[in-house]
Amino acid sequence: MLDDLTGIGRDPGTGGYRRFAWSDADLELREWFKGEAEARGLDVLEDGNGNQLAWWGSGGDALLIGSHLDSVPDGGAFDGPLGVVSAFAVVDRLRSSGLRPSRPLVVGNFADEEGARFGIACAGSRLATGDLDPDRALALKDRDGETLAEVLVRRGRDPRALGRADWLDSIGSFVELHVEQGRGLVHADAAVGVASAIWPHGRWRLDFCGEANHAGTTAMIDRHDPMPAYAATALAARRLALESDDARATFGRIEVEPGGTNAVPSRVSAWLDARAADEGLLDRLVAEIGEQAREASVEGGTTVRVTAESVSPAVRFDAELGDRIARQLGAPVLPTAAGHDAGVLSRHVPTAMLFVRNPTGVSHSPQEHADDADCLAGVDALTTVVERELS
Amino acid sequence: MLDDLTGIGRDPGTGGYRRFAWSDADLELREWFKGEAEARGLDVLEDGNGNQLAWWGSGGDALLIGSHLDSVPDGGAFDGPLGVVSAFAVVDRLRSSGLRPSRPLVVGNFADEEGARFGIACAGSRLATGDLDPDRALALKDRDGETLAEVLVRRGRDPRALGRADWLDSIGSFVELHVEQGRGLVHADAAVGVASAIWPHGRWRLDFCGEANHAGTTAMIDRHDPMPAYAATALAARRLALESDDARATFGRIEVEPGGTNAVPSRVSAWLDARAADEGLLDRLVAEIGEQAREASVEGGTTVRVTAESVSPAVRFDAELGDRIARQLGAPVLPTAAGHDAGVLSRHVPTAMLFVRNPTGVSHSPQEHADDADCLAGVDALTTVVERELS
Repeated sequence: MLDDLTGIGRDPGTGGYRRFAWSDADLELREWFKGEAEARGLDVLEDGNGNQLAWWGSGGDALLIGSHLDSVPDGGAFDGPLGVVSAFAVVDRLRSSGLRPSRPLVVGNFADEEGARFGIACAGSRLATGDLDPDRALALKDRDGETLAEVLVRRGRDPRALGRADWLDSIGSFVELHVEQGRGLVHADAAVGVASAIWPHGRWRLDFCGEANHAGTTAMIDRHDPMPAYAATALAARRLALESDDARATFGRIEVEPGGTNAVPSRVSAWLDARAADEGLLDRLVAEIGEQAREASVEGGTTVRVTAESVSPAVRFDAELGDRIARQLGAPVLPTAAGHDAGVLSRHVPTAMLFVRNPTGVSHSPQEHADDADCLAGVDALTTVVERELS
Repeated sequence: MLDDLTGIGRDPGTGGYRRFAWSDADLELREWFKGEAEARGLDVLEDGNGNQLAWWGSGGDALLIGSHLDSVPDGGAFDGPLGVVSAFAVVDRLRSSGLRPSRPLVVGNFADEEGARFGIACAGSRLATGDLDPDRALALKDRDGETLAEVLVRRGRDPRALGRADWLDSIGSFVELHVEQGRGLVHADAAVGVASAIWPHGRWRLDFCGEANHAGTTAMIDRHDPMPAYAATALAARRLALESDDARATFGRIEVEPGGTNAVPSRVSAWLDARAADEGLLDRLVAEIGEQAREASVEGGTTVRVTAESVSPAVRFDAELGDRIARQLGAPVLPTAAGHDAGVLSRHVPTAMLFVRNPTGVSHSPQEHADDADCLAGVDALTTVVERELS
């Protein structure tokens, strides 16, 4: 099934995937999901937020498995799809073993997990659980200035349907399988692991503002150039995160206005992705980066405004479910610094995550990889978990 | 006439102009130029490079006046158009005074002076003089990946017509009027000045390359993130230019790949605009910035490649013509750090420049300004110069 997806949304230049929410690639993936579900006789429902759910059986206390199909810019083939494909594979295994589930089994594809287009990660699951305000989501703009509301209308969806989803009340538990995005399982010498927690993390937008001017005729001393303040902040963020063993700080997206080679910028907007092992550490890290940004801006005769775009508190997955699964599988238990729909759902239903080994630890890149044998070990593990939970 | 242009290519959000080469706005400006020329009975010629020339009279030893109509992103209303509009105003003055020029008088609009779309400034004049290779120009790409050749075809032009223009042989001298882009004339307390020289200047592209990865799960110590090397280089460039009174260094355009908030960048491309009072100083400045970029890249486990995109040597305008004009006008003589089509043509025909006072010195910004009285003083001065040169 992963092979069936290799052509969708792939940049021929880099080999990476650009499967942004509601893009042509995303719509193609949604059709693929619908086709796979219908081929297995599952009832497919798309909720008002764009989350797709394929039901085997009906009623309450359902077991949800699955992940997402969208990607970051230039993402890898596994982050997201591996969990969806493995979930369909589990259905096939259970079918061929003649099992009739005692509870409904649901395969899910969550909308816009990466937040690559509208800036808020896990938008689909946050909307479905009521953690993200629909009006705020509808007003989000992509890089072309189009709002989510406009995009939904263009894609034939009803913007008024956004919000908490009824299906959530029918879910008894959720298990998300995902490729590991570090090398924890390499060090543990295991193909599959169980997640204990997700670090608290978030995205902050820093708008460094100055005054546009001619890059040739404006003396260095007369400039109000916001670029040096951004540069000093980027270096400070790296230094502060390095000083702590348990933190990350990244600037991976920048916009410069007016953006001409021969114009001193009027504005540099930079997005900070920050994560840490606990909330106190994260708060201190972001506060110190903001302080450095303000100091550098004052020094350069410019200003800075820091806006939190999305902040996710620490997630501790359901300990009982996680421990049970780890015992069943004999698998190691490890934390992660990546956000997931499982993190969002864990605040509403008992939730667990399985990770599949990633030999290089590289993720959000075309170099992301998982060996075939480990992918199959992931399907074995998820099948074991589902059988036990449904028995 | 300036008022007639205020609506063309203006960004309603910023009030700045986005009149890029061969854009809809540029085509509208070309139609405007044609209309103004035809209304005055001038013969309009567009050469194979898109330069427009409106001839009053024919034959050799023509006097060319004019400037350009395109803009940087979010540019002001005067940079370029003031020179074209003033040239038409001079024709009107001469007409109403009953003058019949002894030599042809030509009003010019040079194509793509700012280089805002394809990255090479003064592309129209450089092509016409043979200083820019047509094949190199045709292969230049804009930000959407479209080549100049493709754009020209789409706009009904013939890419094979690019190259040295015959009209150049008929030009005896060129006088370009331009809004000043600094505050030299404010300090000299004069409405109009005469240019002595243009500083050597150029654009260099710095590609900082590393490895894309997940911004959450990749430990700081495991990253090959090119952003810190860019940031260190931006700070070093500012410091090095500040240390010299006679140099400028600016990073006004950046591209980050893959450009996702939650992805460690694989590549940061940054465009350096550097200028200095003499060529030795400029060479040393760019070499030192490149050295800092390499050191910072080695330190971060990343690489950098520096490519010169366009480098313009120092221009000394025709001393005889400039001195004569300065004496006629009683105007101060001053250098500039901005490139102009006049700089390109000065290597082929006797060339001079007039500057009109800019009270704030701000340029390449919607805040760019010239008072009405100073604009009229510019037309007076250009009329005086043309009358003397044609008499």
